[in-house]
Amino acid sequence: MSPTLPEFEDVLAAAARIAPHARRTPVHRSRSLDALAGATLYFKCENLQRAGAFKFRGACNAVMALDDEAAARGVVTHSSGNHGAALALAARSRGIPCHVVVPEGAVAGKLAAIEAYGATLHRCAPTIAAREAAAARVQAETGARLVHPYIDPFVIAGQGTAALELLAEAGPLDALVTPLGGGGLLSGTAIVARARAGDIAVFGAEPEGAADGIASLAAGRVVTDIVPDTICDGLRGTLGEPNLALLQRCRVRLLPVSDTEVVSAMRLAWERLKLVIEPSSATVLAAVFRHRGHFAGRRVGLILSGGNVDLAALPWQEQKAP
Amino acid sequence: MSPTLPEFEDVLAAAARIAPHARRTPVHRSRSLDALAGATLYFKCENLQRAGAFKFRGACNAVMALDDEAAARGVVTHSSGNHGAALALAARSRGIPCHVVVPEGAVAGKLAAIEAYGATLHRCAPTIAAREAAAARVQAETGARLVHPYIDPFVIAGQGTAALELLAEAGPLDALVTPLGGGGLLSGTAIVARARAGDIAVFGAEPEGAADGIASLAAGRVVTDIVPDTICDGLRGTLGEPNLALLQRCRVRLLPVSDTEVVSAMRLAWERLKLVIEPSSATVLAAVFRHRGHFAGRRVGLILSGGNVDLAALPWQEQKAP
Repeated sequence: MSPTLPEFEDVLAAAARIAPHARRTPVHRSRSLDALAGATLYFKCENLQRAGAFKFRGACNAVMALDDEAAARGVVTHSSGNHGAALALAARSRGIPCHVVVPEGAVAGKLAAIEAYGATLHRCAPTIAAREAAAARVQAETGARLVHPYIDPFVIAGQGTAALELLAEAGPLDALVTPLGGGGLLSGTAIVARARAGDIAVFGAEPEGAADGIASLAAGRVVTDIVPDTICDGLRGTLGEPNLALLQRCRVRLLPVSDTEVVSAMRLAWERLKLVIEPSSATVLAAVFRHRGHFAGRRVGLILSGGNVDLAALPWQEQKAP
Repeated sequence: MSPTLPEFEDVLAAAARIAPHARRTPVHRSRSLDALAGATLYFKCENLQRAGAFKFRGACNAVMALDDEAAARGVVTHSSGNHGAALALAARSRGIPCHVVVPEGAVAGKLAAIEAYGATLHRCAPTIAAREAAAARVQAETGARLVHPYIDPFVIAGQGTAALELLAEAGPLDALVTPLGGGGLLSGTAIVARARAGDIAVFGAEPEGAADGIASLAAGRVVTDIVPDTICDGLRGTLGEPNLALLQRCRVRLLPVSDTEVVSAMRLAWERLKLVIEPSSATVLAAVFRHRGHFAGRRVGLILSGGNVDLAALPWQEQKAP
């Protein structure tokens, strides 16, 4: 594995490594969504993955790849979202310590989930500097390995296994669409698509309110001065440097979607697929509806990234039926 | 097939008959729900069935079993809920007319679904007498065959195919639990359980606010003077005569659940299984939690009956997170 970017062989190794632990999630279909989209859609249900999101794939690959000596010192990350919970669960599966640095003000429910998986929480001020300092301190004190949520090559390779399974189940596809936050899932997916025979177009769906990926691809460098403002809480991170390089190399195209489009697509997915998916997941369906020219008449694989949503605060609660 | 009650062979015939049309729904698991219940739970996901509920199995079996001459005259039923939609979809699959008698005041969204599947709606006053008169009139005018939602033997046999698939996938089970409304699903499930080697206990989960089934088993006759008051809109019907006979013969036990328990179980299922299920479906999980003595340490199959729910009016919207 290169120091910064994994190859297809690393995705295959990840698939073997995580197979005893991760769920081989199902691929769902919907005739009515196919009709609405004018395309043949294959939904990879990572909302049914352990800990409720694809993040477990990458975290598990990173944890299981450690040698015993390194593993014994544990792992650390700074993510109060799905990656934090996924790393905690992966560490518990191996019986090693996990430290999660969380900013003050993080959602209590998410922290409870991370603690329920046995991780130790380290609170810090809600700035990037404080977060990185806290993680460095934990590393220095414990020797724990930092598992970054989307630039770690083992994490990227692990996320690629979702596309691997999707292609194995659905057969040849014309296009793959994943949400874009930091770029781990999209990078892993692009690596898999490029290695397959045939021409699979790879798309990232990105919220307009956190479109640093689109800005970065246009600028040819990572743009960091965008303040995210989107309902997609899993996609507020900044595109990683190695992820940008990989998206450029693989000619990945990015498609913007608005929060309004995301909420509509999310509700439609709940109604027709009967699946609980989080807003970040719905970006892919929203992208297929908005950017029809890329998908009409094609076989399209969509990765539903996760299902961790606050059921007491659904975005359409204001839109009461008459 | 007896004029009133189907046998196991009829369920096997139904399975063959509906196989080209119905979805073989998956069986889902959840470690966290197993831990909470103290049992090993297998969830048969009929919310993922076509038209969003197990009802398609029975309706499809009834429609596909008609000879060509009878089929050409179409089918009729009086159900504005899942059975009406299921029958409409089954009739469309065969290319025959479907008539659905619906009471004034029925939910507009459900009627739209029935019409979207191509059925003709016949409106009537919201009384049982008016409903039966309207159905009889349609029968007389068109020669359509009445497909009753839960006493029709072809419908009961079709509903039994869900348990058949569940046992095939999960392996030996100690218990099966289904919701109880009119008794079609529970009857079909009991027929399958009785025919299998081993001792499978069969339970029906019934809302306290529509507990005519429990009253009927106690009285030894169908009790019809209960006015239903429950959130479980699919379970407000009255237990059928042949269904009662079958539940007695198969020693099925009925377990009451409150609406509060149903709402908690429904929310928990959404959170942990990431599946959209309707209140009626959640009765089975509520029953496993409330009546632990029957299930602790056992392998339990639960049929999640459907997923047609009004997303704009979820029962926990008042319980906003702090």
